[in-house]
Amino acid sequence: MAALAQSVLVTGSNRGIGLELVRQLAARPQAPQHIFATCREPDGLSGKALRELAAQHPSIKLVQLDTVSLPSIQRAVQAVQSHLKGQGLNLLINNAGVSSRATLQSVDSQEMLSAFTTNVIGPLQVTKEFLPLLEKAAKGQGKEGLSCSRAAIINVSTKVGSIGLCLGVLEAPMYPYRASKAAQNMMTRCMAAEPKDKGILCTAIHPGWVKTDMGTEKAPLTVENSVRGILTVLASLSQDTTSAFLDWEGNSVPW
Amino acid sequence: MAALAQSVLVTGSNRGIGLELVRQLAARPQAPQHIFATCREPDGLSGKALRELAAQHPSIKLVQLDTVSLPSIQRAVQAVQSHLKGQGLNLLINNAGVSSRATLQSVDSQEMLSAFTTNVIGPLQVTKEFLPLLEKAAKGQGKEGLSCSRAAIINVSTKVGSIGLCLGVLEAPMYPYRASKAAQNMMTRCMAAEPKDKGILCTAIHPGWVKTDMGTEKAPLTVENSVRGILTVLASLSQDTTSAFLDWEGNSVPW
Repeated sequence: MAALAQSVLVTGSNRGIGLELVRQLAARPQAPQHIFATCREPDGLSGKALRELAAQHPSIKLVQLDTVSLPSIQRAVQAVQSHLKGQGLNLLINNAGVSSRATLQSVDSQEMLSAFTTNVIGPLQVTKEFLPLLEKAAKGQGKEGLSCSRAAIINVSTKVGSIGLCLGVLEAPMYPYRASKAAQNMMTRCMAAEPKDKGILCTAIHPGWVKTDMGTEKAPLTVENSVRGILTVLASLSQDTTSAFLDWEGNSVPW
Repeated sequence: MAALAQSVLVTGSNRGIGLELVRQLAARPQAPQHIFATCREPDGLSGKALRELAAQHPSIKLVQLDTVSLPSIQRAVQAVQSHLKGQGLNLLINNAGVSSRATLQSVDSQEMLSAFTTNVIGPLQVTKEFLPLLEKAAKGQGKEGLSCSRAAIINVSTKVGSIGLCLGVLEAPMYPYRASKAAQNMMTRCMAAEPKDKGILCTAIHPGWVKTDMGTEKAPLTVENSVRGILTVLASLSQDTTSAFLDWEGNSVPW
């Protein structure tokens, strides 16, 4: 198995899909040299599982990163840069996000703003600040075409954010979650279009409905299988799938 | 020409498409009985053209409504309710919005939040607060199926907010505008699904690229022709086109 990328950064990596991404990346025969596992409180109670994992794998570097705090993002860029010693960052996985359920009757502006802040503005600011490191990776020797091994932004999205699929009976209207994820999908398209000439791929991934704190136990898919699928899809991405919305099995999801 | 609706409310009606909607609605042979022309400052300098128009048409009622202020929305509901004297509101046109250009390099969180607040949370709160009046209209005598003459929410959207069309060269990335309008389109879908059993239609309309303050003089379409098209489309809406995204000529726009 070829290396997916020499350096990877995962936001929200202390639990759920983020934690499993770090776990499977570190366990690969050709593991990335640097796995930057970021979360809000790597030293706190919520970072315990991640710290235990990092203790087993020197490739994992814990980095404090609160995606809704610009100073925190900028400190994380500094920390990552000092680890990379002049190299670029190949793969940024914007995984951190929140779910938020509300009907038209129950929704308020604060819940909407909070979902937009975490699910859209967070990954946007993270991407903006890490862009110089992604650009540096894209310019690396012998790199052509688009791939995760060269330079890529992966936005973890959800089928629930598909405007095309959102029709008919809505058991859970989830205005804040759906609206913020549709906005995030638009951001993926803009990012795929805007820095395209710079050699940076950008793709949205639906991880499936996964048994995590967010997905609940009712979900049909284990986090192990979801992440195994995601990593296989990431390894296959190219010029043809930048700007796409794919699920964990590589199927296209309607916008 | 049959009456489009007995009562219509238009947000952001002091200029551009909103003002022209009020003008053409009032000039129809079978004009609505009540045209609630709302804007932030109906008594200010920016409300001058609207006041002049209202002076010629008793059907036009000026109502102060700042779509990003919940108290303002709630006062507007009271004002509209007192005019309607027990009747419901047939047609709510969420027209107020802002454009906002920013590239990945220039965008900041404040510009994103501002676009979300005006383009998504504004129409969401307006719709939520006017919902009881829309529901009342939907329950009116002899009303079946879905139509603007019964009860409808029209969200003025834009092709620029189409995630499907946002590909390739982006002369103007416009992150805040595109992302907020994609989120607004998702909101249209949720609104079409959630109150469907209540007899309320919800459709997103792309008015075209129109010569307005927002569209600039470079736009190919006059505001008169855009609004003439929009009103023809609104009159044609039914069960088949609730939850749709249509342009001013009635053509479907991809999400």
